[in-house]
This record gives sequence, structure tokens and C-alpha cells, in this order.
Amino acid sequence: MHSLKGNYDFCLEFRVRDYECDLQGIVNNANYQHYLEHARHEYLVSKGVSFSDLHDAGLDLVVVRVEIDYKYPLRSRDTFMVCLNVKRKGNVRIVFEQDIFRLPDLKHIASGIVTGAGMRNGRPVSPEEVISRLGLV
Amino acid sequence: MHSLKGNYDFCLEFRVRDYECDLQGIVNNANYQHYLEHARHEYLVSKGVSFSDLHDAGLDLVVVRVEIDYKYPLRSRDTFMVCLNVKRKGNVRIVFEQDIFRLPDLKHIASGIVTGAGMRNGRPVSPEEVISRLGLV
Amino acid sequence: MHSLKGNYDFCLEFRVRDYECDLQGIVNNANYQHYLEHARHEYLVSKGVSFSDLHDAGLDLVVVRVEIDYKYPLRSRDTFMVCLNVKRKGNVRIVFEQDIFRLPDLKHIASGIVTGAGMRNGRPVSPEEVISRLGLV
Amino acid sequence: MHSLKGNYDFCLEFRVRDYECDLQGIVNNANYQHYLEHARHEYLVSKGVSFSDLHDAGLDLVVVRVEIDYKYPLRSRDTFMVCLNVKRKGNVRIVFEQDIFRLPDLKHIASGIVTGAGMRNGRPVSPEEVISRLGLV
Repeated sequence: MHSLKGNYDFCLEFRVRDYECDLQGIVNNANYQHYLEHARHEYLVSKGVSFSDLHDAGLDLVVVRVEIDYKYPLRSRDTFMVCLNVKRKGNVRIVFEQDIFRLPDLKHIASGIVTGAGMRNGRPVSPEEVISRLGLV
Repeated sequence: MHSLKGNYDFCLEFRVRDYECDLQGIVNNANYQHYLEHARHEYLVSKGVSFSDLHDAGLDLVVVRVEIDYKYPLRSRDTFMVCLNVKRKGNVRIVFEQDIFRLPDLKHIASGIVTGAGMRNGRPVSPEEVISRLGLV
Repeated sequence: MHSLKGNYDFCLEFRVRDYECDLQGIVNNANYQHYLEHARHEYLVSKGVSFSDLHDAGLDLVVVRVEIDYKYPLRSRDTFMVCLNVKRKGNVRIVFEQDIFRLPDLKHIASGIVTGAGMRNGRPVSPEEVISRLGLV
Repeated sequence: MHSLKGNYDFCLEFRVRDYECDLQGIVNNANYQHYLEHARHEYLVSKGVSFSDLHDAGLDLVVVRVEIDYKYPLRSRDTFMVCLNVKRKGNVRIVFEQDIFRLPDLKHIASGIVTGAGMRNGRPVSPEEVISRLGLV
């Protein structure tokens, strides 16, 4: 249905909930970060990456940088799709390039670049198991 | 300053943040529950009750029931005070009677009754240490 | 699939998002109120009730009382269903009886009773159009 | 008390609330955006900028880009300070450079660059009144 999906590693559909909107009648800026996070987590789970298993093995994946360009606002009850591609950056970083499109017209709502890093005992390490599961080796 | 404070075990002041307001320009209903929770936690900490210490000792305090009457809405940038009294109910329950008043006019915004219970390994137990620290014995 | 649905006027499925969970690894209490609200709003929209149209006609539907019994916690990535029945209470109030069930085992997670009222210029009025659309006359 | 304040146009103190923390026991990434927003709004109000007055005059201030570098996590009940400087960028953009410091040790928690633009009828315009009130002319 959405030919755009072919350009991405993963897409997830959402609907705006009224409580996510603010005084101006549009989705509050911070909620886009929630949408981006939920799509990343669902993607990682779909690839067999378990945060709790990693944590038990002493490895945490943390977000170290977020960039979001807001192009057009989402409103109450809009449906939309969060899509992402994932890339490796150096030894310890994984970069998610994410886009939000309104449905069904595919209006480009926002784009984000989210950088995650592996951390063990508070120090940056290569998240090797994640890199392997995501096919980034 | 607020003579009402004499009627309560604890009061905490807040200011509404814009992101807590919704489409109708008033604080979203669920956020009152956040305000009530934050006031309870600050109260418990002020009495030397530590959730993490309790948790490490195998005891969790969980909310089992919430009742909130909404009397008048809070709006952007209103300041307000969340007050509470605490009572024991049977062996395993602690009841918080909470009121929210707008400042400085003391308009009564909402009242809540929040019931907590001690849980150990998923079973209700008497939260004896908490009861003792709160002087409810 | 879910025979329980026959007992309710409306049911809506959700999945827990990680950001809705708190320190204890379970969904924060206030988020259940968000789930209940989103299910009510989707139900009202499905019946042709538009908050913005009502608002433009000078009528607001507001929540005046919430009661929630928390029976069992939801955890990260659980799927669940929020179901509701709606009743009229006197001339100005509408009562939503809501239940949350975990999927697929239908474990009863929480029940809520949410009372809404019609308000015009800050005074309670009968939300006649809503009552009519919901078939509560 | 905090000599750092001399380096900024505005600083605001906060305390982490438990419901802002997630599964990992640290503040959820999206909540930093709430903190940054609340500090900006309090700053603008302190300068006499009213969102609702601007809106009534047909001018909206919207966020068009956010960059946040996460350096160290905030935890339950940490106190912290959000500081900001404001600059003009071209005719239609205002840039907020924001930093979050934990108190009392002034540990640098995060830095953000938030770009706002004036919008009238969906088109970018110079937010002249805001620029004037902030002394950016």
C-alpha cells in the first residue's frame, strides 16, 4: 500500500491520542520523541534484541543524541507511520534515521536522527551483539 | 501563609506546565494523578520511607485504588498546592486523603482518595515499617 | 475471538509502550487513565460525537469523577483491551464502566468508573445531543 | 549561589518526579524536552511574551528543530537547573541554547539547541514583537 515502506528497514503505524495534543490543538513536541522511541524499540524487538537480556549481560543501549526537524504538525486522531533506517557509526554508535509520515496522504511530518551507544559500567563499548542482530557488521 | 496547611499532614506547591494542558486549554485529567503521586512520594521521603530500600527488602508499596473528584479545572501557569492526610485501613492498607487547592485563592480544584497496599512476592502484606515511620501504629 | 466483547458496547486494543512504564517496570498508574480516556474518545467518535462540534455549539463534556481499581499490573509490551459500557445517570451525567483485560489470557487488569457531565458556560446541563447519539434516551 | 547563572539569560530549577523515570531508573529521554520547553515558556513569560495574546493577534511561535545531546542521566529526585541563552537567526527564527545541570554539583547533564519560528496563517513570518521584547533587535 505505501510504496515508501520499501525505502525503510521498518515502519510502524500509530494514531494520535487526544491526550498527546496540547493547548494549540497539535501534538506536543516531546510526544514525537515518544513515537520515534516506540518505533525503534518495536524494530529492535522484531530483530530479537531484548533490552532486559542485554541489561542482564551488563550492556545498556542509551540515546546520546537526538535531532528532530518538525515540518508539519499532527492533530487529534491523525493516523501516521514512523519509518526508520539503521546504520553503524564507528565502533560504539548506532544511528537511526527516522521519518514520520501522515496517513493516508504521506505528508512528511518530521524527520529525526537518533544516535545510540553501547554502555557497560558507564563506559562506551561496542554493542556487538546488537550490531550483529541488526546485520550491521 | 495558608491556614489550610494546619489541617493536613503534608502540602506541596506546584505550577502547571504548558505541556500538561490539553486541547481544551486545561490540565489533562490524568496529570492530576501525577500531581497526587508526586506529593505522596515527597511526603513518604520526608518521613524517611525509601521505595528502593523497601524494594531491596522485598516489600513494594502499590496503589490499589484511586478516586478523584474533579471540581474545577487548573489552567496554564496556575500555581497550586497538593495536601494530604494519611490513615491506616486494616492491616495491609494505607489511605491517602488528598486535596488540590489553587493558589493564592485556595479554590478547591480536586479531591482524591488513594489506597496503597504492601505487597511481598505478589501477596498483600502489612507494610509494617512504613506504618511505623508514618506514626500510624 | 474474545467472547468478552459481547458484554460491552465497545472495546479497543492497545500495546504497552516502554515509555509508559516506570521505575518498577510496570505501567505508571496515571497511564491507565490515558488508556481509559483514549478508549472513551474513540467510542464517542465511533458514535458520531465530535468534541469540537459540541464545543463550537457551546457544550463541553467534562470528567467530574474517576474511580479506578488496580488489580494486576501491565508490563512492557503487554497487549491489552479496554472495554466499556455507557449509562445515563440523572439528567446531566453519563457514566462509563470500563475494564482493562490483558491479551490473550483476558487477565483482569483494572476496572474504572468514569463520570462525565455536560457543561455550558461553566454550568451543568443535559448533554442531550450526546445522550441521543449514544442511544441513552 | 550558582556562578554559572551569570553566563545565561535565564535559569529555572526543577526536581525529578518519579513518574518521569522509566524502566532503567533514569529520566525518559522525551522528558528532557518537557524540561527545556517549560524553562523556555517561563523565560518568555518573564519577558512579557504571552502565547495566547500572540495567538489572538494571529502569530504563533512554533518549534521547527530540536537537537539534544545527552551527557549523563538524571535519576529519581535529582534536583537540576535548566539554563538558556537566546539569539536571533535571520528574520524569522529564534534560537535557544539550553543546558541542564544537576544540583548542587553542576554536573552537565544535557545540552540542547531549540529553534523556533514565527508563523502566521501557516507561513513563516518575523516574530517582531517577540524579538523586540527579548531585546534581540
